[in-house]
Amino acid sequence: MVRLALLGAGRIGRVHARAISMVSDVHLKYVFDPMADASRGVVDAYGAISAPIEDILDDSEVDGVLICTPSDQHADQIKRAIKAGKAVFCEKPISTDLDMTRQVLEVVNKYQGCLMLGFQRRFDSHFTALKARLSEEAIGSLEQLLIISRDPSPPPYPYMRASGGLFKDMMIHDFDMARWLVDERIVSVYATGGALIDEKTRTEGQDIDTASVLLTTETGKQITILNSRRAAVGYDQRVEAHCANATLQVNSVRETNLVVSDRSGIGESPLENFFMTRYQEAYRREMEHFVECLKVGRTPLVTGTDGLEALKLAEAARESLGMQRPMSLLDA
Amino acid sequence: MVRLALLGAGRIGRVHARAISMVSDVHLKYVFDPMADASRGVVDAYGAISAPIEDILDDSEVDGVLICTPSDQHADQIKRAIKAGKAVFCEKPISTDLDMTRQVLEVVNKYQGCLMLGFQRRFDSHFTALKARLSEEAIGSLEQLLIISRDPSPPPYPYMRASGGLFKDMMIHDFDMARWLVDERIVSVYATGGALIDEKTRTEGQDIDTASVLLTTETGKQITILNSRRAAVGYDQRVEAHCANATLQVNSVRETNLVVSDRSGIGESPLENFFMTRYQEAYRREMEHFVECLKVGRTPLVTGTDGLEALKLAEAARESLGMQRPMSLLDA
Amino acid sequence: MVRLALLGAGRIGRVHARAISMVSDVHLKYVFDPMADASRGVVDAYGAISAPIEDILDDSEVDGVLICTPSDQHADQIKRAIKAGKAVFCEKPISTDLDMTRQVLEVVNKYQGCLMLGFQRRFDSHFTALKARLSEEAIGSLEQLLIISRDPSPPPYPYMRASGGLFKDMMIHDFDMARWLVDERIVSVYATGGALIDEKTRTEGQDIDTASVLLTTETGKQITILNSRRAAVGYDQRVEAHCANATLQVNSVRETNLVVSDRSGIGESPLENFFMTRYQEAYRREMEHFVECLKVGRTPLVTGTDGLEALKLAEAARESLGMQRPMSLLDA
Amino acid sequence: MVRLALLGAGRIGRVHARAISMVSDVHLKYVFDPMADASRGVVDAYGAISAPIEDILDDSEVDGVLICTPSDQHADQIKRAIKAGKAVFCEKPISTDLDMTRQVLEVVNKYQGCLMLGFQRRFDSHFTALKARLSEEAIGSLEQLLIISRDPSPPPYPYMRASGGLFKDMMIHDFDMARWLVDERIVSVYATGGALIDEKTRTEGQDIDTASVLLTTETGKQITILNSRRAAVGYDQRVEAHCANATLQVNSVRETNLVVSDRSGIGESPLENFFMTRYQEAYRREMEHFVECLKVGRTPLVTGTDGLEALKLAEAARESLGMQRPMSLLDA
Repeated sequence: MVRLALLGAGRIGRVHARAISMVSDVHLKYVFDPMADASRGVVDAYGAISAPIEDILDDSEVDGVLICTPSDQHADQIKRAIKAGKAVFCEKPISTDLDMTRQVLEVVNKYQGCLMLGFQRRFDSHFTALKARLSEEAIGSLEQLLIISRDPSPPPYPYMRASGGLFKDMMIHDFDMARWLVDERIVSVYATGGALIDEKTRTEGQDIDTASVLLTTETGKQITILNSRRAAVGYDQRVEAHCANATLQVNSVRETNLVVSDRSGIGESPLENFFMTRYQEAYRREMEHFVECLKVGRTPLVTGTDGLEALKLAEAARESLGMQRPMSLLDA
Repeated sequence: MVRLALLGAGRIGRVHARAISMVSDVHLKYVFDPMADASRGVVDAYGAISAPIEDILDDSEVDGVLICTPSDQHADQIKRAIKAGKAVFCEKPISTDLDMTRQVLEVVNKYQGCLMLGFQRRFDSHFTALKARLSEEAIGSLEQLLIISRDPSPPPYPYMRASGGLFKDMMIHDFDMARWLVDERIVSVYATGGALIDEKTRTEGQDIDTASVLLTTETGKQITILNSRRAAVGYDQRVEAHCANATLQVNSVRETNLVVSDRSGIGESPLENFFMTRYQEAYRREMEHFVECLKVGRTPLVTGTDGLEALKLAEAARESLGMQRPMSLLDA
Repeated sequence: MVRLALLGAGRIGRVHARAISMVSDVHLKYVFDPMADASRGVVDAYGAISAPIEDILDDSEVDGVLICTPSDQHADQIKRAIKAGKAVFCEKPISTDLDMTRQVLEVVNKYQGCLMLGFQRRFDSHFTALKARLSEEAIGSLEQLLIISRDPSPPPYPYMRASGGLFKDMMIHDFDMARWLVDERIVSVYATGGALIDEKTRTEGQDIDTASVLLTTETGKQITILNSRRAAVGYDQRVEAHCANATLQVNSVRETNLVVSDRSGIGESPLENFFMTRYQEAYRREMEHFVECLKVGRTPLVTGTDGLEALKLAEAARESLGMQRPMSLLDA
Repeated sequence: MVRLALLGAGRIGRVHARAISMVSDVHLKYVFDPMADASRGVVDAYGAISAPIEDILDDSEVDGVLICTPSDQHADQIKRAIKAGKAVFCEKPISTDLDMTRQVLEVVNKYQGCLMLGFQRRFDSHFTALKARLSEEAIGSLEQLLIISRDPSPPPYPYMRASGGLFKDMMIHDFDMARWLVDERIVSVYATGGALIDEKTRTEGQDIDTASVLLTTETGKQITILNSRRAAVGYDQRVEAHCANATLQVNSVRETNLVVSDRSGIGESPLENFFMTRYQEAYRREMEHFVECLKVGRTPLVTGTDGLEALKLAEAARESLGMQRPMSLLDA
């Protein structure tokens, strides 16, 4: 029986608590959250014990820790948990700062710790099916990759301000997806972006809401990422991999398979409207993978290095947007 | 250069005149229509000469005749044209009466004439692609055939009354499609139907507007035909052939490939709204086939016998509906 | 806390055990299965106690019983459980015999018991979305209903022989679906069917494997049900409701949203290949509903009467096939 | 009756000759092509007279001239025809050289001539439907435009060398599409590209075969264009316009509506495999528009200026690729 602790019982923390409950042979022993209401929900639903971080890390029965606290606490908590000998699953980002991220990875390295990062899309069955096909020889080599990610609606301005910006908060998932799918060094990033949905995104959120980014890899593969904070039809997340012998696509997931055909045309269901619904199954498989790695001492599919590399791309995109020219990643 | 004459310059006659203009090496020499306006259109657009039927049939330059007059004139005109040694293309039906149809076929036989019937769907590229795949061994044998045909809106009541009824006027195309695709004797017909769209269909049109029919073939293949005189989304014409190793479908043709995704869902274009637009290309290929048969003395793909057999099925469906039991076609 | 017991820990029993574990405030206290291996799985996974039926029904803590034993034990077990004052969820059928089914319903009635039948499709989100739209006035009245259900592959011959035949074992779900969606009395049934996939279906399985059935309702609505025991593409389950102002369709659920376009065309994923995967979420919602009904004393959405009525349709279809004529249900 | 002359009876010339034959009230009086075989085909099929350019331009009966000769002859022939008072329809490009293009436009201006350029996609019904919806207020303002154009297979190396390169030969259609759809000044272009399909594209064709380009407009709209000279599935041409209240897409056109579902999945037809088939109807409507403009003295929808502006974008993309940085078009 694997015993885990949850730090942070907010929205995404509860998603992981639920995911844990569906993995066999695992028990969520502790939950930590300064908000009593938040932790109580997890206590009630899964029989976890509410405890301060110190006690959790001191309990030798605890095998692993899930860090779902606000982003600016991640780095410190990872280091403490790793030093305490716990395996760590951390929601992205490790930090929005590159140097801090590198420091954390050094600690992980030094202690030979296990750190898994929460890029859940890698565990989504649609994308894993794409990844599997991409590696088939008959498909031929990848030439153009297109990733479209559009959220149903923008987050609040304070969230934007604290998030590190669209590139680090939202497109970072696409950067990781790109790295995972092309499986090759990305050497340049050119970003365009603006506050096209809402001018206050810039003034109040100190952010952009719409971005189009072009990356190239060392062998010249072309990667396009389109992001928007708002899509009327719902949570729109697509990937297209154009290869020598085939073009592979993962389309967005619709709410239902109902089709209503009337005078105005053929109407299919809107898309899933929330990333937690869209990726519910991926969160479960992600947690299964973490537990599996923890049990057998395997390196997770998504490591701290993946977090660092995606952050570098986000940082480069931010700089490119500011300087209006492509940034090289060769010396990064 | 093949020379043709058009009898009847109404809606469908003009469709064929246009189709002829797109076939190479053919000239539409004559048009006959008692309505001066109708024939004038064809005279102006294609340089045809307006003439009475007698003169047309007497002109030895005329190789073939297209009969697009009202249905009740078909039988007589076919016989006259065949006796005059002309190849005949006739819009369905030969006649709505079985005995009269048989008489016409006897004349065609006796004179070894060439009679092609206007079941244009057999020349539609979507359906010919289906037919071609059906004959592939890898597909395996056909087990269930489903044909759905729904018109955008019902015809006027007087048309209904004169048409011979839904089975002979509308479903006759589906009966021919079924015969063509199963390529096997149909042995029983069971029909249900009613005036579900509009009660006046029954009282004023002396017809039904919605029908579901189940047929079986001699080896037990199951055929379902669903007809409705009204579909909000447009001209809905589909075929599904469930076979041992694959299920083959032809979907309805949409007006455009535009997709509009918004809050209400993913909206595709309505269907083509008119059979003449839907089958424009099929009409051209049909006419090409007629001209080709005429030139080389080949038997057309759709003969008078096909017209007779489809009519028998329509007649059996009509009887089945009246008697509320399946009708055998074994001794028909 | 609601306490349930599971009778029968085979394939479908374990599906329900898993579903229960995802419903809050419910505990699976007991499991009964003469096969020690089967019950042990449920004991280990969910902490249930293995016990004989007598003990289970004697335990006053048990609120409800799930009957997932072989079909021929259902009737007896329902009666015993109802008499013991337990709410009963039973997999279809109550019995494959009409009289026995009526006897069971009398007992349920007499004891004012709660009996819910396992027609899980009524809890599927795609079909409930269809049902909801059907009731909207803007859609207009239903005219033609088409239900296509095709399994990936046929069951073993012994299963066929014991199942009561395709109509009672497989199409019974479609009969229930039809009843639910048309919400109107069905007055006639005409069935065609045969062993088209495999001749041994008839000789060894004493069954048919392919059937097409036409039903009509008291206002003349037309219902078509197509069944096949084998579809190469997977578990193919579709519904099309043609209404005055719209045509509503639920399409089959594909395994993934991956599309691979190459020289041979545009290839989408096969369908979900197993009804338990396809309906996993429906099973959970079904169990939620049962627990809810049990808690508040509400009549379930699917009662014993629904089981009886679907069985009557199946029986009528069987007779129709034998007599090769439509059967009236007016005096059934 | 409008009288036209065709200069150049190669592949695209014959496409236009055929299109003319389907427009009413127009006669193709002349054809010019130094290759006797090419002109003879047009003479035979449409009754045109083969004649040298001088004679054609001298004939006062000729209202308009279609220039379908090799690209390097366009500029000279446009000028001569305009000076002779003929309306001119010219296949793209006017010239692959910017200065020469400007010179031609000056001549057109000076003589107040009518010059229409052959960007046929603007006449395609799918794209015009998109354009119409884009202008609806309910759709909201455009934020991201994505244009994907992939040819079935690359042209021969000599064609590449003479074509002016992928940006001027292929992507120029997409630049025009972008200008037409965003209807706003494009201010920057950043291009990536390479010979990913075939290394000889670079060495023998002196060209690239795969390109991804990012453009921005003066209000910050983001435009992405993806080009590839080879797509296994066929002629893949798509547009996606992400707007405030809706996302509009035009999908590629498939050869047929046949769907084959088997063990391997759900297989739809490949795409139309040839731009002349894909745009057959657009070519007809384009010619109709030219004739209409010629008759009523209207300015065509696609003028020489559109040709110049698209060429500027292509030139800027070429430079961007060479310099590996975005190019501004503000002072171009």
